[in-house]
Amino acid sequence: MKKHNFSAGPSILPQSVLLKASEAIVDYNNTGLSLIEISHRSKEFVDIMENARALALELLGLEGKGYKALFLQGGASTQFLMVAMNLLEKRAGYLNTGAWSAKAIKEAKKLDDIYEVASSADANYNYIPKGYDVPSDYDYFHCTSNNTIFGTQMKSFPKTSVPMVCDMSSDIFSRVIDYSQFDLIYAGAQKNMGPAGTTLVVIKEDILGKVSRDIPSIMDYKLHIKAGSMFNTPPVFPVYTTMLTLEWLKGLGGVAAIAEENEKKSRLMYSEIDLNPLFKGFAAKDDRSMMNATFNLTNDNLKETFETMLKEAGISAVNGHRSVGGYRASMYNALPLDSVKALVEVMSELEAKA
Amino acid sequence: MKKHNFSAGPSILPQSVLLKASEAIVDYNNTGLSLIEISHRSKEFVDIMENARALALELLGLEGKGYKALFLQGGASTQFLMVAMNLLEKRAGYLNTGAWSAKAIKEAKKLDDIYEVASSADANYNYIPKGYDVPSDYDYFHCTSNNTIFGTQMKSFPKTSVPMVCDMSSDIFSRVIDYSQFDLIYAGAQKNMGPAGTTLVVIKEDILGKVSRDIPSIMDYKLHIKAGSMFNTPPVFPVYTTMLTLEWLKGLGGVAAIAEENEKKSRLMYSEIDLNPLFKGFAAKDDRSMMNATFNLTNDNLKETFETMLKEAGISAVNGHRSVGGYRASMYNALPLDSVKALVEVMSELEAKA
Ligand SMILES: Cc1ncc(COP(=O)(O)O)c(C=O)c1O
Ligand SMILES: Cc1ncc(COP(=O)(O)O)c(C=O)c1O
Ligand SMILES: [Mg+2]
Ligand SMILES: [Mg+2]
Ligand SMILES: [Mg+2]
Ligand SMILES: [Mg+2]
Repeated sequence: MKKHNFSAGPSILPQSVLLKASEAIVDYNNTGLSLIEISHRSKEFVDIMENARALALELLGLEGKGYKALFLQGGASTQFLMVAMNLLEKRAGYLNTGAWSAKAIKEAKKLDDIYEVASSADANYNYIPKGYDVPSDYDYFHCTSNNTIFGTQMKSFPKTSVPMVCDMSSDIFSRVIDYSQFDLIYAGAQKNMGPAGTTLVVIKEDILGKVSRDIPSIMDYKLHIKAGSMFNTPPVFPVYTTMLTLEWLKGLGGVAAIAEENEKKSRLMYSEIDLNPLFKGFAAKDDRSMMNATFNLTNDNLKETFETMLKEAGISAVNGHRSVGGYRASMYNALPLDSVKALVEVMSELEAKA
Repeated sequence: MKKHNFSAGPSILPQSVLLKASEAIVDYNNTGLSLIEISHRSKEFVDIMENARALALELLGLEGKGYKALFLQGGASTQFLMVAMNLLEKRAGYLNTGAWSAKAIKEAKKLDDIYEVASSADANYNYIPKGYDVPSDYDYFHCTSNNTIFGTQMKSFPKTSVPMVCDMSSDIFSRVIDYSQFDLIYAGAQKNMGPAGTTLVVIKEDILGKVSRDIPSIMDYKLHIKAGSMFNTPPVFPVYTTMLTLEWLKGLGGVAAIAEENEKKSRLMYSEIDLNPLFKGFAAKDDRSMMNATFNLTNDNLKETFETMLKEAGISAVNGHRSVGGYRASMYNALPLDSVKALVEVMSELEAKA
């Protein structure tokens, strides 16, 4: 039985991408060699890297606007540190909307002064704070566009004169926004892009080179840009598979096309959560994430029955994060509408039964 | 035609490993899900990670001796920084035997005082310095066991009371030595272990926790150990494929068995270099690497003929590194003796022709 994969990350990828990636492991493009046993300096791989970098900018609408795309190692967690290393001179402002924002704040604080412009920690991060100010003398402002764990998502971003940095790990390429309002975007591949092991960083080049610290080479965005994202051996397979997913997305019609699909999926999901009396949503309605729907049973006695029904329907990985409990349905770009239909059907059946 | 793959890294992997890795991309162990779309916290992946970590210690003979194995991201280049972050309080000693050692020194110097105990830079690193001292009040001593670019290899290591750190990126698991003389070993996977995208770090735990700096979380070995090498999302596919290669090596009889093969391959290679008047070796004879044989034509006019013959024989990636020139035959664990035979045959044919 083909599974309906709601995993929060690493997560579902398009079937066509998985097939091509699998073939490349045995023989890359009839070269007689596996993709993973050729030099990263070979024409074959340099082309893959350049294609992936160009596709990322194209899909975000950032071509020819002074941005560079990098595919690095270390996950989004490494970016918590690299952002501060490269941009923090005196003080920066962070919006605290969840566990990931809090971790970004913790790492930046080790280097210098960090100010929380606002926080929703008071309500276990079930909403996005609004109406805060970002002082114009800060080095940068940092936010997390989508909170994977709590299922909240920023629908708008502050207008500010300071560089805006955004962790888009769990919603990049999923919706139509003006990506040029950001000066630095980063995102681990393992939700909307590819397998774990590479992180996309998109940087407006003119924000770099302004701090006085002697940045370690491997943390220095400028050096990575200069080396064409090959300062050292890149994670070949994750980058290739990410390139395939970006090609797939472009083939579908890009971010605008997938955004429509994502709206359909999340509308269906949330209307079931709202209309079905056995379930209630966790996040504030205005701040609900299109990517991760968090919800709970209103009657805990139904837990076992519900989970058995999920299993029988081939629905996998809808367990909530341990800090929230309940359920989380992650509906990333590659998740078909049919998978949401299957989940919603089980929820209705439970209501019919109960 | 199956290629003879002498790539210096990323490099050849066992065919059986490539096939299993390729299958896992489509369906992992009949779970109905791809390996790269399941949670890294799933039992399936936690088992892979634990197996890979245990195999690494077992194959190095370091089980039950106070060591922990980690599979991190960022390449060996990230270890240049992490080693210093975690161990450097006042001063450390580095042996400079090539470009990689020099980079390790450069990064550590950004943090504190570094002393080059000896260097072979005077002769374009074609030998390994000997007879140097490591002062007993240093925080640690760092060396590079095998110089991938120059084709030199340390045959013995200093006896010292300070912790010994070794970059074994290009010869780990290839020869029988007492691995317990080291306190920290690191190695990028992409030579003797697996695909690019993960780095093995083996640490004697009692050397940690002795520096005063506030180590960034993602750079802190203690946190990675505490989290079972899952402080953040690990590079799932590179770790899995590395696990498969370590299983393959164990199946062959471990390091002792592969070391015999490696000796046969390098003996054959170097005897051709020495006996054939058209070629001469680059590295000092006593310090020759079993992994990377570097050599030059004695008559540059034969370059085109030689390279055409190599191509016709399906021999790929024997070009030397740009800083050395000439040729480099990398003979990692997964390279069959037959591939060396094929290369040596071409070299003999060239002699017969010339
Ligand atoms: C929004 C967000 N930021 C950061 C991270 C951390 O990513 P990584 O595990 O790649 O370091 C995650 C992981 O799920 C995430 O969802
Ligand atoms: C001995 C040695 N150390 C370090 C490195 C750098 O490794 P990475 O590219 O994974 O950072 C290499 C790469 O070839 C190497 O051969
Ligand atoms: Mg702006
Ligand atoms: Mg309801
Ligand atoms: Mg010792
Ligand atoms: Mg000779």
